[in-house]
Amino acid sequence: MGIDSLLYSTHVGWMDSSAGPETDVAISSRVRLARNLDAVPFPHLLNEQTGKKVIDLVKQACSQSEYEPLRSLQGVTFDQLSELDRQILMEKHLISPQHAHFNDSYRGLLVNEDGSRSIMINEEDHLRIQGLLPGFDLEKCNDAVQMLDDELEKVLTYAFDGYRGYLTACPTNVGTGMRASVMLHLPGMAMTAQTNRIFHNIGQLGMTVRGLYGEGTEILGNFYQLSNQVTLGLSEEEICHNLTLVTRQIIEQERRVRDSLQKGMAYQLQDRIGRAYGLLSHAGIISSNEALTLLSDLRLGVDLGLITHIQATAINELIVAIRPAHLQKRAGQEMDAFQRDIKRAEVIKDILFRK
Amino acid sequence: MGIDSLLYSTHVGWMDSSAGPETDVAISSRVRLARNLDAVPFPHLLNEQTGKKVIDLVKQACSQSEYEPLRSLQGVTFDQLSELDRQILMEKHLISPQHAHFNDSYRGLLVNEDGSRSIMINEEDHLRIQGLLPGFDLEKCNDAVQMLDDELEKVLTYAFDGYRGYLTACPTNVGTGMRASVMLHLPGMAMTAQTNRIFHNIGQLGMTVRGLYGEGTEILGNFYQLSNQVTLGLSEEEICHNLTLVTRQIIEQERRVRDSLQKGMAYQLQDRIGRAYGLLSHAGIISSNEALTLLSDLRLGVDLGLITHIQATAINELIVAIRPAHLQKRAGQEMDAFQRDIKRAEVIKDILFRK
Repeated sequence: MGIDSLLYSTHVGWMDSSAGPETDVAISSRVRLARNLDAVPFPHLLNEQTGKKVIDLVKQACSQSEYEPLRSLQGVTFDQLSELDRQILMEKHLISPQHAHFNDSYRGLLVNEDGSRSIMINEEDHLRIQGLLPGFDLEKCNDAVQMLDDELEKVLTYAFDGYRGYLTACPTNVGTGMRASVMLHLPGMAMTAQTNRIFHNIGQLGMTVRGLYGEGTEILGNFYQLSNQVTLGLSEEEICHNLTLVTRQIIEQERRVRDSLQKGMAYQLQDRIGRAYGLLSHAGIISSNEALTLLSDLRLGVDLGLITHIQATAINELIVAIRPAHLQKRAGQEMDAFQRDIKRAEVIKDILFRK
Repeated sequence: MGIDSLLYSTHVGWMDSSAGPETDVAISSRVRLARNLDAVPFPHLLNEQTGKKVIDLVKQACSQSEYEPLRSLQGVTFDQLSELDRQILMEKHLISPQHAHFNDSYRGLLVNEDGSRSIMINEEDHLRIQGLLPGFDLEKCNDAVQMLDDELEKVLTYAFDGYRGYLTACPTNVGTGMRASVMLHLPGMAMTAQTNRIFHNIGQLGMTVRGLYGEGTEILGNFYQLSNQVTLGLSEEEICHNLTLVTRQIIEQERRVRDSLQKGMAYQLQDRIGRAYGLLSHAGIISSNEALTLLSDLRLGVDLGLITHIQATAINELIVAIRPAHLQKRAGQEMDAFQRDIKRAEVIKDILFRK
């Protein structure tokens, strides 16, 4: 049932703005571990038969585990899902864009009810263990994946090298196999053109900034995914700790900028937020990029207390609900770009003004 | 009282969309006659003393008339009005932009309660007799000014030449001294880029097209003032008749275009109108040009029945109420451009959503 509700509902756990810390700036936090089974070729060398073995081993490890969060994960393989449904999972950040392209029976997902814990199977690595939570909470994400990892390791034999650490299909993940990231909403810093400078400095600290859907995706709606680049030479705690320190500084700076905008540019800010509200609530045709830009302004209005009758959670939901697969799932049919732009305008009103 | 209410209210007669014919396309109709007194120099050669003589003669002719619409005109001279108040009268189309610049005691205005009949005194000519009505009704405008003119001529001796007709300060007005005009709202033809072609042809028929405030003013918000160029060699009835024929054709064409837009571009039209509504009702800072553009879209929505809770009359009022002088009169203080943009956004909401 977990999978079905994740496919049909627009809501998943990380969107719940009331359930996480620092949600005025941090949308969600994520930690994932790349793990591979010993003595099995990496996924790009697998076929139906050898790949199936990985699935079976992982599923078995879960179902036999005494650790309830692991045992209760729901599984699905990608031959059971339409392309649209895989896109739905991708748009919700439960699988990667790369993973969503496959329809193999030996690729799949294990996931809990609210999407906060999941394991991609046979993506780039045999296992990608993910913790995904609302707000700024890398520590809790890390705790969640470490627990899953420890429990799995009781049964599975990972590819591990005493000198290099966990071995992965791509050398950039070798070591801890960890990628930690925080999705930040930085409209204040974007308005005052401070993001380039900040993110330039961040690169020098071994971190990187990406768009809503990770590597290679454009930055839209002032949503920035900040993550570690380095997986080797630091412990998992150190990676989380470093990213936490940098993120905390960015959050503080974004708050200071918002504060000074509210003091010095109150009319301009209200105008901008009012216009976003007016367009989102009355447009009949709207592109994904325009919608994200306006949702960013609206979200700022909510976070500044200028708009009180709309929930931040509804805006988080919309960031996903306006994506192509979610629109088509909701409409129950394939749609071209123009039809999606019309449907998008309708969905925005539905979710923003939902009773 | 007439002058005061014209200065303080945002409403004047020509705005009343329910009171005129063809108001889905024609905002207002206007006829004015240029007249000069015999044996008195034209206004540009007048001084305080000689100018005063014109005022006295005209006022006397009015007050002694048996024709009630003439006798009941209220008078004001421009030394009694602040520059702001003269701008207010100009923005309401009761005096010309040129006339509004003067603060002389020998220049002034006679006007009735609702602004439908008026006489500018010592503008370019001694008298400019104006009839101004809602919708497309040149005949009624002409009737009104002819009646005023006939009654005045019983007392005043006009500068008249048997061969040339009425003599005027500028030779382009010699003959009938008549200018007839219709303010048209042509969003459909503008959207489909047909206005240039049409107005090119109109020039060849001895007519011309101007913006909201006549000669030299920009065309904004798809409002076009169509008027006759030729005042000589045609009777007053012929001038009105020719302009009526051409206007009727343009009105029909605008309706056909709207009809085909509603059939072929329904979504785009609704989007455009919805966005205009959303921005007008939620912007916090808005320029005059943007407001007129959006009011044009909104007006189209009202005329097409897509927006039902806003009255066309309120939009006509807004075209004037968002002008600089009206904004400052309403605020009770001088305002710079930024302050006006803020006040404009407020006034738009006030008048659109007035109970």
